Amino acid sequence: MRTIAIDAMGGDNAPEAIVEAVLKAKAEMPDTKFLLFGDKEQLRKLIPSDQINDQLGVVATTEIIADEDEPVKAIRRKKDSSMVVAANFVKEGKADALLSLGNTGALLACGIFIIGRIKGIARPGLMPTLPVQNSDDGFNMVDVGANAKSKPEFLLQWAEMASYYAEKIRGIQNPRIMLLNNGSESDKGDDVHQAAYELLKDSDLNFQGNIEGNELLLGKADVVVTDGFTGNAVLKNIEGTSSFILHILKDSLLNGGVMTKLGALMVNGSLSSLKSKFDTAKYGGAILLGVNAPVVKTHGRSNESPIYFTLKQVDKMIKENLVQDFKDEFATK
Amino acid sequence: MRTIAIDAMGGDNAPEAIVEAVLKAKAEMPDTKFLLFGDKEQLRKLIPSDQINDQLGVVATTEIIADEDEPVKAIRRKKDSSMVVAANFVKEGKADALLSLGNTGALLACGIFIIGRIKGIARPGLMPTLPVQNSDDGFNMVDVGANAKSKPEFLLQWAEMASYYAEKIRGIQNPRIMLLNNGSESDKGDDVHQAAYELLKDSDLNFQGNIEGNELLLGKADVVVTDGFTGNAVLKNIEGTSSFILHILKDSLLNGGVMTKLGALMVNGSLSSLKSKFDTAKYGGAILLGVNAPVVKTHGRSNESPIYFTLKQVDKMIKENLVQDFKDEFATK
Repeated sequence: MRTIAIDAMGGDNAPEAIVEAVLKAKAEMPDTKFLLFGDKEQLRKLIPSDQINDQLGVVATTEIIADEDEPVKAIRRKKDSSMVVAANFVKEGKADALLSLGNTGALLACGIFIIGRIKGIARPGLMPTLPVQNSDDGFNMVDVGANAKSKPEFLLQWAEMASYYAEKIRGIQNPRIMLLNNGSESDKGDDVHQAAYELLKDSDLNFQGNIEGNELLLGKADVVVTDGFTGNAVLKNIEGTSSFILHILKDSLLNGGVMTKLGALMVNGSLSSLKSKFDTAKYGGAILLGVNAPVVKTHGRSNESPIYFTLKQVDKMIKENLVQDFKDEFATK
Repeated sequence: MRTIAIDAMGGDNAPEAIVEAVLKAKAEMPDTKFLLFGDKEQLRKLIPSDQINDQLGVVATTEIIADEDEPVKAIRRKKDSSMVVAANFVKEGKADALLSLGNTGALLACGIFIIGRIKGIARPGLMPTLPVQNSDDGFNMVDVGANAKSKPEFLLQWAEMASYYAEKIRGIQNPRIMLLNNGSESDKGDDVHQAAYELLKDSDLNFQGNIEGNELLLGKADVVVTDGFTGNAVLKNIEGTSSFILHILKDSLLNGGVMTKLGALMVNGSLSSLKSKFDTAKYGGAILLGVNAPVVKTHGRSNESPIYFTLKQVDKMIKENLVQDFKDEFATK
């Protein structure tokens, strides 16, 4: 039986949304066990007692890592936090994967320092799946912030892992890999990006050259590889720019005249579908690639639906032995 | 009399939109001379002959630098291009500033290699003004791509010039300066950003710490300073994400039912005002800070309105002696 360790106390809607998602997933995934880590009283109240069985367990913990906690300090000091205890279960082989909606930095630290790096991987990288125009496939971007400093070799390894993930888990044949850079020509970028370009070009990957910041959401690439600093700024900027436009849109409609307001009511359904298009729920969470088990972060604001999809994503990663394949691949390099 | 050298052949709507904007600006700015560089026949057809006078001149050129031309090669080889001849007029003191809608890289090269760096400035930086939520003020971001490699000292100089610009040209008292980084804490980022943070903190600027990619459009900063590589990716990403959302929005409305389509017609005016909010026309163009004259790029897709506002912006920069102040300031450092 596959076992997913779930930090039930992270995120804005914890633990309710997490329990809801687990109950839904449990009914559909009979070969998977869900271990919820968190406050016993709160969890007991939310879980019908007949649901606690071989497939669903609660591990009582007494501490919570907050979003504002300094990550490395927090995982050292809060030994009985839901996140750290869950990570230790994975480390000790009592669970196969870790899912959290909590403090991203702390989760990365749990992945790197508790669960540990895969032998042969220089630096783990954080990889979400993001939407693209004109297709439901989306694309992967890595690294979006596990590393402030990146070397060309890191980018190559991230691209290799991401390409394998896109093919094996997302079912994309021969994924198109592109490098986020400041121009399309091969000599663009600083030293790191110029060297990364050469490494990618000489690799076995289906490397399609450079991609620029304005092209990310056009669907030109299945995997975009980037240094963690730029990737972090760009990922956050996608979020910020989207909010900005939706905010102005709402303002424009609310401050218009009677006709505008009436019109706004009439287009409301379509605007909701706009939101759902941009909602990345169905893509699951962001994966910390390069550690000894699937470690996945779902957005802290997630409600039940993205958590449910992330559970399916994590389950597939365990089932397909993704991490074991990485271990085999990189140990021999 | 102040003289603006205008590359009339750059951009998608050249030379028509450029001539239109110049004719409008000319009527309102009696102390300014406009020199249009480009194809004599085309320009003569567009300019009523009674408009050619002390305030408006045409300088005939025979070549055009295309968007796909390699910048440095292009300015070396196309000696009689509208952009290069205009830049030489500025260099020789026959004009006070350069405006172009053409190849950005070539314009940067004209600024740096023909017009020249200000003594004491390590590297010029490119700075647009971008919109923010809940205010018409916008903010400046520098560098957005003049440099692929940046050092901490470059960022400090860009911040100093941008702060002065925000105060003197945009009229913002004591501008708030922030550093684009991957977290809010002072020790965030790679070596360049950590060192830049310290330099900014120890400067006379009104430094407010780090800003993250999702906060850029919230109006927290009047000036955001960034390394040119990240700034380039983020600027392009703002453009790409906006297009993405407006595209999906349009799709949602067009593919909705009859009610949605009717509603879309009714909200149309408000959606146009949304576009105008995001339209950065009124902010003028992106300035190459740190060269011996105002060198300004307006978006290649601009129609008459943004060009007109850029002419006003350039005129103010000449009138206020912005570049002379930079020369005085940095020569003594």
